[in-house]
Amino acid sequence: MKTVLKELESIFGDRLYTEPQILALYSREASSESGRLPLAVVYPANPDEVVELVKTAIKNRLKIVPLASSTSLSGNTVTKEEGVVAVSFEKMVKVLEISDVDWYARVQPGIRVDELNLELSKYGLQWPVDPASARAASVGGVIANGGGGVKGARYGPASHWVLALEAVIGTGDVIRVGCSTVKCREGYNLMQLFIGSEGTLGIVTEATLRLAPLPQSFVGVMSRFQDVMPLVDAVIEVRRSRIWPTVAEFVDREVAKLVGLGEGYYLWLGCEVTPGGEKNMLNALSNVLSSRGEIIAVASSLGEFNKLLEPRRRLYSAQLNAAFEDYGTDAFLYIEDIAVPISKLGEAVKAIETLARKYRIKYAMGGHIGDGNLHPAAWARRSDEEEMSRVRQFYLEVGRLAIKLGGTISAEHGIGTHKKALLREAATAKGSDVVLKLMKELKRVFDPYGVFNPGKIVD
Amino acid sequence: MKTVLKELESIFGDRLYTEPQILALYSREASSESGRLPLAVVYPANPDEVVELVKTAIKNRLKIVPLASSTSLSGNTVTKEEGVVAVSFEKMVKVLEISDVDWYARVQPGIRVDELNLELSKYGLQWPVDPASARAASVGGVIANGGGGVKGARYGPASHWVLALEAVIGTGDVIRVGCSTVKCREGYNLMQLFIGSEGTLGIVTEATLRLAPLPQSFVGVMSRFQDVMPLVDAVIEVRRSRIWPTVAEFVDREVAKLVGLGEGYYLWLGCEVTPGGEKNMLNALSNVLSSRGEIIAVASSLGEFNKLLEPRRRLYSAQLNAAFEDYGTDAFLYIEDIAVPISKLGEAVKAIETLARKYRIKYAMGGHIGDGNLHPAAWARRSDEEEMSRVRQFYLEVGRLAIKLGGTISAEHGIGTHKKALLREAATAKGSDVVLKLMKELKRVFDPYGVFNPGKIVD
Ligand SMILES: Cc1cc2nc3c(=O)[nH]c(=O)nc-3n(C[C@H](O)[C@H](O)[C@H](O)COP(=O)(O)OP(=O)(O)OC[C@H]3O[C@@H](n4cnc5c(N)ncnc54)[C@H](O)[C@@H]3O)c2cc1C
Ligand SMILES: Cc1cc2nc3c(=O)[nH]c(=O)nc-3n(C[C@H](O)[C@H](O)[C@H](O)COP(=O)(O)OP(=O)(O)OC[C@H]3O[C@@H](n4cnc5c(N)ncnc54)[C@H](O)[C@@H]3O)c2cc1C
Repeated sequence: MKTVLKELESIFGDRLYTEPQILALYSREASSESGRLPLAVVYPANPDEVVELVKTAIKNRLKIVPLASSTSLSGNTVTKEEGVVAVSFEKMVKVLEISDVDWYARVQPGIRVDELNLELSKYGLQWPVDPASARAASVGGVIANGGGGVKGARYGPASHWVLALEAVIGTGDVIRVGCSTVKCREGYNLMQLFIGSEGTLGIVTEATLRLAPLPQSFVGVMSRFQDVMPLVDAVIEVRRSRIWPTVAEFVDREVAKLVGLGEGYYLWLGCEVTPGGEKNMLNALSNVLSSRGEIIAVASSLGEFNKLLEPRRRLYSAQLNAAFEDYGTDAFLYIEDIAVPISKLGEAVKAIETLARKYRIKYAMGGHIGDGNLHPAAWARRSDEEEMSRVRQFYLEVGRLAIKLGGTISAEHGIGTHKKALLREAATAKGSDVVLKLMKELKRVFDPYGVFNPGKIVD
Repeated sequence: MKTVLKELESIFGDRLYTEPQILALYSREASSESGRLPLAVVYPANPDEVVELVKTAIKNRLKIVPLASSTSLSGNTVTKEEGVVAVSFEKMVKVLEISDVDWYARVQPGIRVDELNLELSKYGLQWPVDPASARAASVGGVIANGGGGVKGARYGPASHWVLALEAVIGTGDVIRVGCSTVKCREGYNLMQLFIGSEGTLGIVTEATLRLAPLPQSFVGVMSRFQDVMPLVDAVIEVRRSRIWPTVAEFVDREVAKLVGLGEGYYLWLGCEVTPGGEKNMLNALSNVLSSRGEIIAVASSLGEFNKLLEPRRRLYSAQLNAAFEDYGTDAFLYIEDIAVPISKLGEAVKAIETLARKYRIKYAMGGHIGDGNLHPAAWARRSDEEEMSRVRQFYLEVGRLAIKLGGTISAEHGIGTHKKALLREAATAKGSDVVLKLMKELKRVFDPYGVFNPGKIVD
């Protein structure tokens, strides 16, 4: 082991740590999951060092877990394996290029999404993939997790907003996939394989991101409902009216209480508009909402709307607080992440309630409702195996519900370790688990020595 | 051979043809390319028949070329190989489901894009991937070619508008990849591998398409320029002003003449607007255009705009007519399909002119300029080997130009046979041809017996 560390030190110098108290930081993630301490953590400064790292790992049969801000929620970054080197991108955070004509930015993977967007805003541009965790989450993490954002209702997921990637694969080769242009037909789309691959196929060392202009005008409303069904109805009616909101978020009664909103269910709808169209859009929103709930605030700019949205951004900490209040540091929080077709939202919400009653689960829910994306979070006492097993069962059954309703077991958090069993069930429900066999073969193509992020997605 | 045909007949009955005059229809495509006559053409009616076909092909070492309307322009559907069965989707053209709440449609692959959009318009919806060939092109063909459309400037390519696919892979297994929801994080993105795979990885038997609402209001302008540089400048300035047009198309002086427009270069800009924002948007467009060119028509609805755009939709037939006028049926037309970053459009257009002079080439150009996507078409006498080789050299050098300017050798037409050499050059220019090795391995994973569309993309 000593010689391995020596080899790593010769690559990374003082950007290598082995102190247990530091390693501990890299064995936890935002999911309540924790793993074994890695052997070491290294902070590469450039792609060449990543290549050297991969070659060293192959030679010494080490594993590599790439990670950034560890805000993952499905057990994507932690591992029980021995002989793991954690690779953190805290030293690769540069914006390399921004083009206000080509609407792209070239960045290093460690940059945080909010920091990037702050820089882009100077050009009137944005990377519209802004997870609720955007303050911490890195671009590399969002790409590797195939994340979605608060603007996903209109802009879609990360996979629509990445143009090109540079990555080091499991042979130590550097590949560059994708183009600087949105259109790109250069054979098979290898780039899309990396998006959502959770660090299992290679290490992303640079990304070229597709950008959108910041909207020239924006209006939005925050509304309250006595019950969840009229809220769901409103979302469905928005679709039927062919209103295409940029933001469509909600929280349930439980979360509302926890974040200091009054009694009720809350829905935020925000829309980009052509200057001059503000009144028409607000009227259209009001037509849909007023018979079903109560509009409690109107925003006439993106800035104002973001202020209204602030309680929604505290969804996760609210869920976490509730768990802590009940169980202190013994709390374990499972955050589900299903999506169902919008037309099935009513059924989904009711069935989740029923499941929670059945398993006597404490839960609170919110999510990107404009994508049909629900995040019920359930908590239990980590030390109480009986309660933990009920929570796990609830988590599993919510996933199965998504399958039953023609939705997906994971919308944006990914498979990690939490959803490997559900991935198999989802494949079987779609008629065949041949897809899992194909995934394993793809893993072998990109990572023939099994170096990257062991035990995630497929075995 | 007789027994093979018997086997095929037992699957397809009278939906099997072997008459040479019919087979001839399936050995040509819209590129001037033609191939060897297939052994037979079959018209499956359902996925099961496709499975049977693949199994028969494996057993008898046949090859399968899936095709739809054969409007491909890079040699994607024709082949010189023997023992090929052409599979046409003319009998699988149904819309299986449309949801006006979930904004998706499930369709069979053979349906033509325009026919689908006609049906969707009844729901106020659209599939916004509308190649200029949409009247003939099929959804399956657009997906397999990873096509783009006239609305690509805003909506992006096919890869953003497919939710899920059912496909038969080279083992005869049916797989279902993707979800009914836009967000979908079920392991590696196998679905994206199929988009743009040109029928080499499997046969798509059903597609779930993401839909968008038809715009509630739309304005646009058609403008004329004395020279190409001010036109390019206008496109750049549109970007800098953060105007995000839905349509941004152009034709050069040559095409303008051929389609009956007056002298000059023409640019069409069309924008979706919030009702009430029409004037503001037209003012913004006029600000950019008026100092550089001349606005010759204004549209205040999508219908009006589509009428203005009609000459642009005749780009291909205009290029073809010009070739026919010069050389009759001996004409061979090479249609290039590069994209460059918008900021490089000026350089690209000038360099193409220089190349055309250098190789003494007759050419006419238009394209999806809002994507940086240029289609210079060059023609030669098929029987004149010297002229043909100059045209091929021009085609190659235009591809190299795209590489040099940080663009792509193919924006939407794909690799087929025409661009295999350029694909290698593009990979090398990006630092390594390891990507080609990876593509070959992916081909082997999905098509281990080498059944599908031989000789395309990679060998
Ligand atoms: C409060 C909160 C809110 C959230 N809201 C959202 C949301 O709205 N939408 C959403 O999609 N997610 C959300 N998440 C989940 C999470 O924030 C996202 O998945 C985020 O993209 C992870 O980024 P990260 O930098 O923390 O990556 P990490 O958690 O450090 O890593 C994520 C994955 O990427 C891999 N990885 C990291 N860097 C690289 C690299 N350079 N190359 C290859 N692989 C790499 C890791 O191995 C891991 O598998 C939320 C989480 C929290 C805690
Ligand atoms: C006038 C004209 C204008 C054009 N404009 C555009 C444009 O604006 N944008 C654009 O992108 N392209 C354009 N093209 C190119 C072409 O029309 C598109 O690529 C179109 O998508 C091809 O559709 P098709 O139905 O003709 O497919 P085909 O040409 O029949 O096949 C295309 C490819 O898909 C494969 N394939 C077909 N069906 C299946 C299936 N079911 N499963 C698996 N593989 C399958 C074939 O093997 C082939 O490789 C244009 C062509 C012409 C002639």
